[in-house]
Amino acid sequence: MTVRFGLLGAGRIGKVHAKAVTGNPDARLVAVADAFPAAAEAIAQQYGCDVRTIEAIEAASDIDAVVICTPTDTHADLIERFSRAGKAIFCEKPIDLSVERVRACMKVVEETKGKLMVGFNRRFDPHFMAVRKAIDDGRIGDVEMVTITSRDPGAPPVDYIKRSGGIFRDMTIHDFDMARFLLGEEVATVSATAAVLVDPEIGKAGDYDSVSVILQTKSGRQAIISNSRRATYGYDQRIEVHGSKGVVSAENQRPVSIEIANGDGYTRPPLHDFFMTRYTEAYANEIASFIAAIEKGATITPSGADGLAALLLADAAVKSVEEKRQIAVA
Amino acid sequence: MTVRFGLLGAGRIGKVHAKAVTGNPDARLVAVADAFPAAAEAIAQQYGCDVRTIEAIEAASDIDAVVICTPTDTHADLIERFSRAGKAIFCEKPIDLSVERVRACMKVVEETKGKLMVGFNRRFDPHFMAVRKAIDDGRIGDVEMVTITSRDPGAPPVDYIKRSGGIFRDMTIHDFDMARFLLGEEVATVSATAAVLVDPEIGKAGDYDSVSVILQTKSGRQAIISNSRRATYGYDQRIEVHGSKGVVSAENQRPVSIEIANGDGYTRPPLHDFFMTRYTEAYANEIASFIAAIEKGATITPSGADGLAALLLADAAVKSVEEKRQIAVA
Amino acid sequence: MTVRFGLLGAGRIGKVHAKAVTGNPDARLVAVADAFPAAAEAIAQQYGCDVRTIEAIEAASDIDAVVICTPTDTHADLIERFSRAGKAIFCEKPIDLSVERVRACMKVVEETKGKLMVGFNRRFDPHFMAVRKAIDDGRIGDVEMVTITSRDPGAPPVDYIKRSGGIFRDMTIHDFDMARFLLGEEVATVSATAAVLVDPEIGKAGDYDSVSVILQTKSGRQAIISNSRRATYGYDQRIEVHGSKGVVSAENQRPVSIEIANGDGYTRPPLHDFFMTRYTEAYANEIASFIAAIEKGATITPSGADGLAALLLADAAVKSVEEKRQIAVA
Amino acid sequence: MTVRFGLLGAGRIGKVHAKAVTGNPDARLVAVADAFPAAAEAIAQQYGCDVRTIEAIEAASDIDAVVICTPTDTHADLIERFSRAGKAIFCEKPIDLSVERVRACMKVVEETKGKLMVGFNRRFDPHFMAVRKAIDDGRIGDVEMVTITSRDPGAPPVDYIKRSGGIFRDMTIHDFDMARFLLGEEVATVSATAAVLVDPEIGKAGDYDSVSVILQTKSGRQAIISNSRRATYGYDQRIEVHGSKGVVSAENQRPVSIEIANGDGYTRPPLHDFFMTRYTEAYANEIASFIAAIEKGATITPSGADGLAALLLADAAVKSVEEKRQIAVA
Repeated sequence: MTVRFGLLGAGRIGKVHAKAVTGNPDARLVAVADAFPAAAEAIAQQYGCDVRTIEAIEAASDIDAVVICTPTDTHADLIERFSRAGKAIFCEKPIDLSVERVRACMKVVEETKGKLMVGFNRRFDPHFMAVRKAIDDGRIGDVEMVTITSRDPGAPPVDYIKRSGGIFRDMTIHDFDMARFLLGEEVATVSATAAVLVDPEIGKAGDYDSVSVILQTKSGRQAIISNSRRATYGYDQRIEVHGSKGVVSAENQRPVSIEIANGDGYTRPPLHDFFMTRYTEAYANEIASFIAAIEKGATITPSGADGLAALLLADAAVKSVEEKRQIAVA
Repeated sequence: MTVRFGLLGAGRIGKVHAKAVTGNPDARLVAVADAFPAAAEAIAQQYGCDVRTIEAIEAASDIDAVVICTPTDTHADLIERFSRAGKAIFCEKPIDLSVERVRACMKVVEETKGKLMVGFNRRFDPHFMAVRKAIDDGRIGDVEMVTITSRDPGAPPVDYIKRSGGIFRDMTIHDFDMARFLLGEEVATVSATAAVLVDPEIGKAGDYDSVSVILQTKSGRQAIISNSRRATYGYDQRIEVHGSKGVVSAENQRPVSIEIANGDGYTRPPLHDFFMTRYTEAYANEIASFIAAIEKGATITPSGADGLAALLLADAAVKSVEEKRQIAVA
Repeated sequence: MTVRFGLLGAGRIGKVHAKAVTGNPDARLVAVADAFPAAAEAIAQQYGCDVRTIEAIEAASDIDAVVICTPTDTHADLIERFSRAGKAIFCEKPIDLSVERVRACMKVVEETKGKLMVGFNRRFDPHFMAVRKAIDDGRIGDVEMVTITSRDPGAPPVDYIKRSGGIFRDMTIHDFDMARFLLGEEVATVSATAAVLVDPEIGKAGDYDSVSVILQTKSGRQAIISNSRRATYGYDQRIEVHGSKGVVSAENQRPVSIEIANGDGYTRPPLHDFFMTRYTEAYANEIASFIAAIEKGATITPSGADGLAALLLADAAVKSVEEKRQIAVA
Repeated sequence: MTVRFGLLGAGRIGKVHAKAVTGNPDARLVAVADAFPAAAEAIAQQYGCDVRTIEAIEAASDIDAVVICTPTDTHADLIERFSRAGKAIFCEKPIDLSVERVRACMKVVEETKGKLMVGFNRRFDPHFMAVRKAIDDGRIGDVEMVTITSRDPGAPPVDYIKRSGGIFRDMTIHDFDMARFLLGEEVATVSATAAVLVDPEIGKAGDYDSVSVILQTKSGRQAIISNSRRATYGYDQRIEVHGSKGVVSAENQRPVSIEIANGDGYTRPPLHDFFMTRYTEAYANEIASFIAAIEKGATITPSGADGLAALLLADAAVKSVEEKRQIAVA
């Protein structure tokens, strides 16, 4: 079986998914839609697919699934429309920045028995998958302490930050999902600390750029998240899971892994400087997992419920900083 | 000048300091005292020094400095006595488990113009010293986020734990001091989370074995501490300091650094399994620093005030766990 | 400009190149030929190209370049035919196992002003390219000592070994090319040692499985090559270049880079177990370099002369083992 | 039992051994002799031992063993004298630069049933010992290929080089011994290549500064040695042993093991810059092994025969370079 795709949104991340879909032997990219015709046209030419309107893709009988890469504020509406249209849906995170809106959207998905996958790409990084597998294989015993370090090479423009929902909903949300992915138990409490250390303009926009979070589950398992909007040495993405029988960790990835030594010491080149090159394999694996789930009629993960759970942790973190206390989550 | 030493306490840590003193060309071990004569006698024979009573050492004109390695509940009293006797004092941490008692003791030290060094040995580890030097040299710009991972190979006996003051005052206290050593600014708030994951008996004794702490300074600098009473792979001691211009880290030390590879992968031996072998060089450097400060009449660091500051952070952490909120420290 | 390709040979390595060609935006795969129609058909279907005979590809006006992936004993003939036909040629190594045949073939290429690239894929590995760039950038000063470690996960079938020309011409030849690529000066002498340590059957077939070689240039620069037909831990491919100002090295690549620690130590997974996954990027870069050279009319590297030079070193190594002495090369 | 020591030679290496002897609970330093009274006096004062003449030490009834750290050209004579005097002898390498003289000396040792240890300190490095233990424990199966990289931070003065016996007898000799220690089988052939790349003055003195050697045993096991008199990044000392079941390696040691990362990459400090700090533990272990062998009446290793064997390999290497061929050793 070949899964026939429509792509909604032909921007930067749309191109990544177009490549993943067309490179997958079990998928075909049938059509692309974008508010900017030129963007859609470029993808259409490169991969030999149609340019269509969103409405046409919604109504198409030759399309089984869509990939939603449009601006964030359109995600929930599009999920509802395409769920009603019976298409399998892969939607870039987040579903919405409002918990209420996400809940309403998920209700529609549920009522229409929709198939929805949310784009937490890091779950599909081969190294992080191997960490999860080591846990599942019992290599480290019971999970006790998860440590996630996640730092961006540089802050996005302040204009973006203003619309982003804040660092916890925009950046830490990936780490909240990763913590849930690894803890093996739902988070019960959130304690967060936040500051503006990188750029005062981010503070003026009402946001933070440097945050630390402790999550704890009911049984006492803990996850620590460290985030910064700045890392001079590249895109810093590390995880470590400490358990009763051992510890497993995934170190940073490097585009080039040589080492040069001289009187100043031993030097290796910096890390990837961009999330798209860092997570190239993750994006391809993510779409492959979506396609495989559709083909097998299997449960899709991460689901809308996973998207909601991460958003609830982000909201709790915001509240924890404001109220200077631990916040319990349902 | 040669600094002439009296050693109070000939137990495990007493032996470590006896070796450090006798191995230092600027020092001489003159006498040792211990409640168990055999213990004192063993050190006396090995290093050719006298066995004396504490009183005799207090009154001795041929002793300039003492190293206090007696049980914790005698530390404050001995500091007061030897400060009054005009001896320079190196005291193993902690001064006392009670903030009030520490304050009273420090008042005596102040009034008698005593010279007191508190044994936070990790400040003298060559790798951690190099981390601090990298900060001082401006290699990473302004400090922003400190991460300290500190896990013991195994929990001490529950009897010890009952007398220890609890994990924050017994174990995390080293990390509180290290955080202060690296943050370059006093800590303003403490947020702590704690659980019993290693051994239920520790919980029955009223303590925790797995804790996570976030410290924040007034300007927003953050330190994260992760502690566990169990690490199957050895004595896990890592620090990382992230700054505006870069990051510096000190990885774990290994007694043997070979690697064996076969079909199961690449394997390196475990870490040191004991704090004394891990910190061999730190103990020697610590005493050397004490001796050098005495010789030069220089300020002694870490001081009693450093001991008090770390204890106040430990108390705040206890309170943070109990009250499920961030605690402000003076 | 788009370079239009014909693929000769649809076996294992043919598939690798088919993927590289079709994934390159400046190239198009027009036709494939193979003695086994089913193999050609599979590639034709996957990438939407024609199946044609070699003769048809030779005569085709819609084909600019060919990739030769047929059995080794057909390489020289095909190079001559396609050079006469005016096609640019990428040929898998070796051109031939006989120096005489290679010389005759290159004469035809020269007379027909042919464009020929020989498939020494390792020159295009991003890590090895970075090593070369570090040298070119003067990071290590003058090259003095090159060390190449190259070990296969397991020996090929003895039947293959019998036809292979022997380990020096089949396996070490890649390292001879890499040494030439890095030494920056032609090799003057070869000293080789060889043994059968892995499998006595290899010895019965008249070949070796474990060899060590020292190359030296006229000015005294040295390269050491260590080869084994067995490495339990995967496909071992390392290079190090020591120079007057420093050293640069490229370590092994791993498909998954996690680390698990417990009481037995710290363990990382084995290396890639197959040259095709190890050199995925190298194969794509290699074809991209070939295409770019055609488009720009630039000199193609590595050339037939490079293929010949490596073969001469292999022949010298064989002679060195037989005569137990250093062999001078022209 | 306490082994009572006389130290012959109070120079740089003499001080190292004085520290090792006095730091060992089973030994006592009784006397020191040196042609320069001030040098002997300094050691005598630091460790509280006598200054005596060599003759007095030879005749002393309160001395069981001597450590010979005098100039190389006195070694053989002193070994003979002290062997006749019935003292156990630890002698710094080499016994002599002449094979004939070594053979004559060993004859005396044999006739007098002397106990002689030769100072190949690297065998006692804890990391290299662990490599050997891994082999002995069967962790890598049968040894096949040994790789030894040994580079000095800088060349010694040319005056030293003129008296040194040449790089093979002065520097590579340590690696010849290490190869023998690891190969598990005697070396049968030597192939060496040598050049002057570091300093033309070394060439004018008739020596080389950059050499590569292949050793082979009768069964075909191979060892590769790479030496340079220059390494900008410190004292480079690595070994790797490849076997039928796996590989074991010992990487370089660093005095400080931090890492600093910024936009230029990840940088670790250089290696040790001096053999004495690199091999501090080895020197202490070496003397401890000598003492233990005396106490137990056990066989002493490495013996005079080991010293001779390494020298024969050095002579063969010289001949191999001169005659441009493989040299067979008895």
